[in-house]
Amino acid sequence: MRIDLNSDMGEAFGPWPMGDDEVLLTVVTSANVACGFHAGDPRVMRDTVRRAARHGVRVGAHPGFPDLAGFGRREMQMRPADVEDAVIYQIGALAAVAGAEGVRLAHVKPHGALYNMAWRDRAMADAIARGVAAVSTDLALFAPAGSALAAAGHDAGLTVVAEGFADRAYLADGTLASRATAGAVLTDEAAIVARAVEMAVHGRVMTVAGTPLDLAVETLCVHSDTPGAGRLAAAIREGLTRAGVTIAAWERRRAEV
Amino acid sequence: MRIDLNSDMGEAFGPWPMGDDEVLLTVVTSANVACGFHAGDPRVMRDTVRRAARHGVRVGAHPGFPDLAGFGRREMQMRPADVEDAVIYQIGALAAVAGAEGVRLAHVKPHGALYNMAWRDRAMADAIARGVAAVSTDLALFAPAGSALAAAGHDAGLTVVAEGFADRAYLADGTLASRATAGAVLTDEAAIVARAVEMAVHGRVMTVAGTPLDLAVETLCVHSDTPGAGRLAAAIREGLTRAGVTIAAWERRRAEV
Amino acid sequence: MRIDLNSDMGEAFGPWPMGDDEVLLTVVTSANVACGFHAGDPRVMRDTVRRAARHGVRVGAHPGFPDLAGFGRREMQMRPADVEDAVIYQIGALAAVAGAEGVRLAHVKPHGALYNMAWRDRAMADAIARGVAAVSTDLALFAPAGSALAAAGHDAGLTVVAEGFADRAYLADGTLASRATAGAVLTDEAAIVARAVEMAVHGRVMTVAGTPLDLAVETLCVHSDTPGAGRLAAAIREGLTRAGVTIAAWERRRAEV
Amino acid sequence: MRIDLNSDMGEAFGPWPMGDDEVLLTVVTSANVACGFHAGDPRVMRDTVRRAARHGVRVGAHPGFPDLAGFGRREMQMRPADVEDAVIYQIGALAAVAGAEGVRLAHVKPHGALYNMAWRDRAMADAIARGVAAVSTDLALFAPAGSALAAAGHDAGLTVVAEGFADRAYLADGTLASRATAGAVLTDEAAIVARAVEMAVHGRVMTVAGTPLDLAVETLCVHSDTPGAGRLAAAIREGLTRAGVTIAAWERRRAEV
Repeated sequence: MRIDLNSDMGEAFGPWPMGDDEVLLTVVTSANVACGFHAGDPRVMRDTVRRAARHGVRVGAHPGFPDLAGFGRREMQMRPADVEDAVIYQIGALAAVAGAEGVRLAHVKPHGALYNMAWRDRAMADAIARGVAAVSTDLALFAPAGSALAAAGHDAGLTVVAEGFADRAYLADGTLASRATAGAVLTDEAAIVARAVEMAVHGRVMTVAGTPLDLAVETLCVHSDTPGAGRLAAAIREGLTRAGVTIAAWERRRAEV
Repeated sequence: MRIDLNSDMGEAFGPWPMGDDEVLLTVVTSANVACGFHAGDPRVMRDTVRRAARHGVRVGAHPGFPDLAGFGRREMQMRPADVEDAVIYQIGALAAVAGAEGVRLAHVKPHGALYNMAWRDRAMADAIARGVAAVSTDLALFAPAGSALAAAGHDAGLTVVAEGFADRAYLADGTLASRATAGAVLTDEAAIVARAVEMAVHGRVMTVAGTPLDLAVETLCVHSDTPGAGRLAAAIREGLTRAGVTIAAWERRRAEV
Repeated sequence: MRIDLNSDMGEAFGPWPMGDDEVLLTVVTSANVACGFHAGDPRVMRDTVRRAARHGVRVGAHPGFPDLAGFGRREMQMRPADVEDAVIYQIGALAAVAGAEGVRLAHVKPHGALYNMAWRDRAMADAIARGVAAVSTDLALFAPAGSALAAAGHDAGLTVVAEGFADRAYLADGTLASRATAGAVLTDEAAIVARAVEMAVHGRVMTVAGTPLDLAVETLCVHSDTPGAGRLAAAIREGLTRAGVTIAAWERRRAEV
Repeated sequence: MRIDLNSDMGEAFGPWPMGDDEVLLTVVTSANVACGFHAGDPRVMRDTVRRAARHGVRVGAHPGFPDLAGFGRREMQMRPADVEDAVIYQIGALAAVAGAEGVRLAHVKPHGALYNMAWRDRAMADAIARGVAAVSTDLALFAPAGSALAAAGHDAGLTVVAEGFADRAYLADGTLASRATAGAVLTDEAAIVARAVEMAVHGRVMTVAGTPLDLAVETLCVHSDTPGAGRLAAAIREGLTRAGVTIAAWERRRAEV
């Protein structure tokens, strides 16, 4: 029993700080670093990579829509070909910045609305997967377990790392309940920790319908932009460890080598 | 007697076209491709690389200040460390986009105000050179012959390709007369071609003081954003060829290998 | 029989020109001026207003989504309240720039995807209408005849000027056929002119279903961004004039004063 | 004895908060609201105006260079005509947003590098003053006492409100010591309060040369972006009040009406 913990990082921009990266870096094993389109600037990116390296945390790219004011959280009708190129651009930019710090990128996780759209929209998902593969098929793709993005990643020859969300309500089809729905976002620490353990140990999550759903996750998302994110992240890690789960970076699966 | 011809390319953005890249690609041997900060977007960058490859033209990065509205032509007081990171970011972005087209970057030429500031400002020049070297010391740095940028490139262990401008008036110290000065920009085709030949064949240029200046240039800049740029570029190429100069991409010098 | 002709203007940005505003200003009676979010910068805006004034053409604001790279043509999931504020911001910016040239704004026409979304989406339409009314109820709102935007404008107490498109195929419900559909965009000059006359004289347009649709339009959109836009615009104006239609700026209707 | 206290406000952007506007609004009498170029977005602008109105604090525009990543603190070589248009654009945008909240703008204070350049550079200063006057000569211009900006404002027919900085070291010529100089920025609360009182009561400040300088200031800048800004601001207000100074918004001087 082992699981990767990932968190978004480097979401400051210019004069504006964001998140408590320093604390989260003591908790997670994978850092998704913003690449300048929805957050992050070249200096922030470099600082973030340097810190992640210092903590021995793996670095991945976190490309988003070109929408600073909306923080990449607003859906945009980008053509798939434009999404592909934007993904390549952002990964390349971060790869070079990381290289300047002696760090190689390990994975890619799309951000915000891009991630959400790719959950169900296969054309969007394919565009992202093609973009990642165009840079390197050594890059893993973080994708929701059972999503269009996961399927696209597999078809593009990428290692897909299935992601789960311990603080979100799941529907019976494996997608998340909309944030607009009551109870869609869990806030109780104990409940979130319990869900994380259930996912990591039993590969299962209780849906809003009250039925269990099999969900083989290899990484859990630890949110960084909520108040008390650091504390919650630490609690999740501790809860998992106590349940006998090893917290360790995801593994490249044999069959895929 | 051989010389490289370079031109800025891919300076369209979103819905706005710019320049006649298709024509210039039949003339030049090196293309400096905008990287999204002063011009260029991921799609434009990819299209430009693809076309350059089709014409067998070498591709380099053309990083600029983060100033779309000013097209990177306005000096900005960026801290050198920020310039370094911005250069790394832009090269990396283009490198990935180029990689998706099977193209490796050959060189870097800073754009506009960044290039001009680095002509004399050693701190700025060092920042740029450090940025290029951080990505790869296999990348050549295009720099004005005798400039702070050329010196910085040498000190950073980069192949420096000395650049000359056939359509600009030179001062006795090897810098360019300000565009605000009368006669600073040559527009007569015959005069420009003659200067290109003088530079390529004799390594020399006549200054505004009326004295010849030794100027060993390895590449000539062919402007792309002036009306009739394509025609002028073709005339320069033809003039050089007629004078017995081989038009060929710059060479990595022995001593540096 | 009279009709207003309107065209988008001032869609240059920084170093990038766009459209042939000078020619269109000899044809149209209302200019929709970009406000910096999808195109236009303060200098372009001022130049455009100055030229429009010189030609006696009315000036209106043409607010769009904050998406330069996508030219405001990509749908964005902005919250209505954010749309409202973005509309106010853009109108205010242009109003001040126009004021510096002694020009008062006459109308507002949303741009691109914002206009298209407001055609059917009443929440988006209301947000736009609220934004316009918050600046001034003296500003008319250009909206598709029979659209959600027109209804929202009426309810917000604005003069609504019903707009028609002579070069687009209409569906039976008064909306436009998607550009992806064959025949959605007319390109034959004679056909477009005939449609303009049919709309202006008979208040009617033939739909793709082959049935006529009543469509009382007060202004016709003359596209500015297609090749030969100036020529087509002139042909439309000439055709309308020949059919006895007076080309004149829209009128504030009595009942609304 | 009376003085205005002003502070920069609304410098959040998209997802990024900044400053403790709520606390500062209980202290100052004039709020300089960012207009979207260096900080602020339409929603932030509107929220800030609403809050200022609730506290009875006057609202002014705080236009800056178009440089979000650099927060408008990096000098940019903009042409004066472009500065003028950018100032008009920003004031107009905020004026409309403020109007939607029933608030009229009272003043304009340039931000960051724009303010600093206009301190000495008369062409820049004139461009700003022209921009303000083009919108309305009812708008006061906040400018350093004795600066090129103050002179430009006077010549443009504007009410100029002379500004002083209680936490900065002054040179004998009335300009500020560069932040790079040791002691350029005062951090001791008691010393800052004492200086504020000296300026407000005696119209005088001690320079780094140790000689007193006459400096008739009508408004004091209370920084908002330093840690503990709210506490310091409150201390300044209290110190001034204790010294018998009335804290009240600046007055339009008779002769200028």
